[in-house]
Amino acid sequence: MSEETTTETAAETTAKSGTAPSRRSLIGWGGAGLALGAVAAGGTAAALRTGSDAVPAALSGDAVPFHGTHQAGIATPVQDRLHFAAFDVTTGDRDALIALLKEWTAAAALMTAGHEVGEGTAGTQPEAPPDDTGEALGLKPSRLTLTFGIGPGLFEKDGKDRFGLKSRRPKALIDLPAFPGDNLDAARSGGDLCVQACADDPQVAVHAIRNLARIGMGKVAIRWSQLGFGKTSSTTPDAQTPRNMLGFKDGTRNIAGTDTAALAKHVWVGEKDGPEWMVDGSYLVARRIRMHIETWDRTSLKEQEDIFGRDKVEGAPQGKQRERDEPNLKAMLPDSHVRLAHPDSNGGATILRRGYSFTDGTDGLGRLDAGLFFLAYQRDVRDGFVPVQTRLSRNDALNEYIQHVGSAVFAVPPGVRDKGDWWGKALFS
Amino acid sequence: MSEETTTETAAETTAKSGTAPSRRSLIGWGGAGLALGAVAAGGTAAALRTGSDAVPAALSGDAVPFHGTHQAGIATPVQDRLHFAAFDVTTGDRDALIALLKEWTAAAALMTAGHEVGEGTAGTQPEAPPDDTGEALGLKPSRLTLTFGIGPGLFEKDGKDRFGLKSRRPKALIDLPAFPGDNLDAARSGGDLCVQACADDPQVAVHAIRNLARIGMGKVAIRWSQLGFGKTSSTTPDAQTPRNMLGFKDGTRNIAGTDTAALAKHVWVGEKDGPEWMVDGSYLVARRIRMHIETWDRTSLKEQEDIFGRDKVEGAPQGKQRERDEPNLKAMLPDSHVRLAHPDSNGGATILRRGYSFTDGTDGLGRLDAGLFFLAYQRDVRDGFVPVQTRLSRNDALNEYIQHVGSAVFAVPPGVRDKGDWWGKALFS
Ligand code: HEM
Ligand code: HEM
Repeated sequence: MSEETTTETAAETTAKSGTAPSRRSLIGWGGAGLALGAVAAGGTAAALRTGSDAVPAALSGDAVPFHGTHQAGIATPVQDRLHFAAFDVTTGDRDALIALLKEWTAAAALMTAGHEVGEGTAGTQPEAPPDDTGEALGLKPSRLTLTFGIGPGLFEKDGKDRFGLKSRRPKALIDLPAFPGDNLDAARSGGDLCVQACADDPQVAVHAIRNLARIGMGKVAIRWSQLGFGKTSSTTPDAQTPRNMLGFKDGTRNIAGTDTAALAKHVWVGEKDGPEWMVDGSYLVARRIRMHIETWDRTSLKEQEDIFGRDKVEGAPQGKQRERDEPNLKAMLPDSHVRLAHPDSNGGATILRRGYSFTDGTDGLGRLDAGLFFLAYQRDVRDGFVPVQTRLSRNDALNEYIQHVGSAVFAVPPGVRDKGDWWGKALFS
Repeated sequence: MSEETTTETAAETTAKSGTAPSRRSLIGWGGAGLALGAVAAGGTAAALRTGSDAVPAALSGDAVPFHGTHQAGIATPVQDRLHFAAFDVTTGDRDALIALLKEWTAAAALMTAGHEVGEGTAGTQPEAPPDDTGEALGLKPSRLTLTFGIGPGLFEKDGKDRFGLKSRRPKALIDLPAFPGDNLDAARSGGDLCVQACADDPQVAVHAIRNLARIGMGKVAIRWSQLGFGKTSSTTPDAQTPRNMLGFKDGTRNIAGTDTAALAKHVWVGEKDGPEWMVDGSYLVARRIRMHIETWDRTSLKEQEDIFGRDKVEGAPQGKQRERDEPNLKAMLPDSHVRLAHPDSNGGATILRRGYSFTDGTDGLGRLDAGLFFLAYQRDVRDGFVPVQTRLSRNDALNEYIQHVGSAVFAVPPGVRDKGDWWGKALFS
C-alpha cells in the first residue's frame, strides 16, 4: 500500500496508449444545450475544448463511424455487449421532442467517437452538475454504436395523435400479432422510442444509455432496459460463431454485413417500399426470450441436437460435417428449429439476427432468469419476423424450453447523413 | 450469405490460436460423478479424454492457478466481470453435501483451467444430458477464478444444527448488525454457500455458476445471484483505476495483491486467529448498494467532489494533485466518504475491496436499477467492514445517493492445496 509510488495519471496513460483515442476529450455543450445545438448544426469545431484531435477520432480503429447512409449497429460487425433501452415519451410538446432528438443525435455522435458529452468534469462550472456522468472517462470508444428506433406509440397512442405523425406511420411497422405461447410482460414490452447501444465494453454501452436518459429527463423516461452480456450472432462470417445459453452456436446462417445484395433485399427499406423518411432504414423486432435452462440441462444431447437440427460441438447441420455446410432440411426432424426457421420453409423470409444472451439474476424460484434477447432487423416486419415466428410459435420443438416474455417493434430510420441531420429529421420535416 | 465458403471449425480456430488453451478439452466425469471423484482424488489424468495437454493448462497465461495456499479471486488481479451466486443448501444430508463439495471442487479446478466439466457434447453418450452446458465451448479461460464461501446458515439455521457444524462457526463470522439506512431485501441477502466467479469474459463467469448450480441440483438451490459488468477496484496499483457508476475512480487506495504484509495483517486469517480450518482463509462481506443515479446526476460537480473528498477527473485527494498522493483528511469535509472510510478514522480498520458495478434493467419507476455490488475481504468482519460501515452509515454524505439493498457474509476457507483437497475439507474433517 505504497501511496507515494509514482503512478501515471489517467491522462498520461491515455496520452501514451497510442492510436485509439480514449473518451477523455471533454467537449463542452453546457447545460443549456446551446453548444450541442452548434454541434448538431455543423459547428463541432467551435464547441471543442481539447482541440482538433477530437473530430478525427470517429475515424480511428476503435470507433465505428456514426454518420452514413444506414445507422451503424445493424450491418456493422456485432460487438460483445449490449445495453438496450426503450423509452416512453412523456412530453406532449412536438418542439420539445424535436429539440431532444437533436440533442441526442449530437451526444450520440460524440459518444460513439469516444468523447464525453460534457465538459463539467473538467471543473469549469463547479456549481453546475457535470455535463457527462463520467464513468466512461478514460475508456476507449470500444466500437460503440447507438441505433435509434421509433415505436408505434409515437404515431398514435391511446387513440391520440400526439405529435401529428399518425399519417406518417409506415405500413411495415405493424403491431405484432399475439403468438401462441407468448407470455408478455407489459413492463418489458413496447416503447415509443428505443436506443440499442452495442460496444465491446459494457461500461461504455451503459454509460451511453444513461447519458441519453439524462439528457431526456422530463421529456422521455426509460420504460425498460436490457443488458446483454454475450452476443449470439455474427454479421462477420469469418469470425468464430458465438454460443447461446443453450450451448449451441448461434448466428451461423445470418446475413453478412458485407453482403450488400442480401441487405438490400431483406434489411434496408427501399425507395419503392416507402415511406420516404424510412428509405435506407430498417425495422427492428426485439423479443425477450426466457430459457428454462434447468430443464434444458436435463435433456439428452441427442434430443438437444434434434431440436435444433444441428450438432452441438461443431454446429453442423444434421447429416453434414461442417458448420457452414448447406443445411439439408429433410435430414432434420419436421419440428426442428433450424428447419422451421429456414427461409425455404417460410417462402424466403429472411431476417438479420443480432441478439444477445442475458442473465438477470434469479427469479423467485431459484432459477436463473436467463435467455436470449432476440433482435432482428428486416425490410418489412410482415415479411420477416412475422412469418418465421408464426411457424416457430406453432411447431418449434424448442418451445418446450423457451418463453417469449417481452416484445417490441420499432422503425429504425436511415443513418444520420451529416452534421445538419438528426435522428428522425425526415419524419418531422 | 455464401454458405459454401470454407470456414474454419471452432476446433481448427482453437488449435491455431496459440498459447492459451480454449475450453474445449472435453473431460469426462460422467453423470454419475464417479470420474469427478477420481479427479478430486488426484486421478485427473485418468479422466482425461483429450490427453496430457489438459493439466498444464492451468499454468498458461490466461488461466489463474486454482490450487494454492489462498483461494484465487481475493488477492489475485481483479478481472473485468463478475457472476456471484448465493446458494441455499436444500439437503439435510451431511454426506450428500460433502459429496457435492468434492464434485464442485473438481469441476472448479477444470473450469478455471479452461476445460469443460463434461464430455457429453462430444457425443459419446447421446442419450444422456451433456455433462457440460456447453455455452463456453471455444472460449479461453479468461482468468476465471471461483471463490467459495460458507454463510452462517451452514452452522445453524432456524435454531437447527443441520450438519453438526455449530461449534465450528468462526467468531469472526458474525451476523452483520443492522445499519442505519439499510433497506435489505431478504431475496437478495444471505445464503448458506456462495461462489464468486470472476473472469474477463462474462459468458465464462455465467457458465461456471450455472454448471455448479446444475451439479448441485437437489442439494443446493441458487438463492440469489448478481452479475457485475464492470470492476470498481484494482488489486494491481499500476493498472488504471476503474470508475464506478458515479463517475469516480474507485479502488485507488486498496490493498495491493502483491503487498503480502498488508494481506497478512488485514486479509488472511492467521494461525492465532483460528479456527484452524479457516487459517489462510478470509471473510467476505457482500452488499448490493443501489445508487440513485438520477439524483446524483443533478448534483453539482463541486458537491460531488466534496462528497468523496477527491476530484473527479484525476481522482486526487482534495488539496493534492495526483491520484496516488497521500490523502490529507483534514482538507476534506468531515462527512466526506474518503475521510470517513480511511483507516485513520477507524482505528486502522482496513479492508480489501473487490466490487463490481451492476445495472439490472429498470425499476418500476423508470429509474435504472444500477449501483455497486460491494465485495470486501478481511481477516475479521468485526475489525473490517463493521467499524467502517458503522461510521459511514451514520455520517457519510454519500448516503443521500445510495441505499444498501442486499447483504451477506461468508467465511472463505483457505485455498484447495492439492488434488486430494476440496472446498471445506478441513471444516468437515
Ligand atoms: C431462445 C430462442 C432461440 C434460440 C436459442 C435460437 C437458436 C438458434 C440456433 C442455435 C440456430 C442455428 C444456428 C444458426 O444458423 O444461427 C438458429 C437459427 C435460426 N433461428 Fe433461432 N433461436 C431462437 C429464436 C429464434 C426466433 C424467435 C427466430 C425468429 C422468429 C429465430 C430465427 C432463426 C433463423 C432464421 C435461423 C437460421 C435458419 C437457417 O437459415 O438455417 N430464432 N437459431
Ligand atoms: C455505492 C457505494 C460506494 C461508493 C460509490 C464508493 C466510492 C468510493 C470512492 C470513489 C473512493 C475513493 C477512491 C478509492 O480510494 O478507492 C472510495 C474509497 C473508499 N471506500 Fe468507498 N464507496 C462506496 C461504499 C463503501 C462502503 C460500503 C465501504 C465500507 C464499508 C467503503 C469503503 C471505502 C474505503 C475503505 C475507501 C478508501 C479510503 C482511503 O483509505 O482513502 N466504501 N469509495
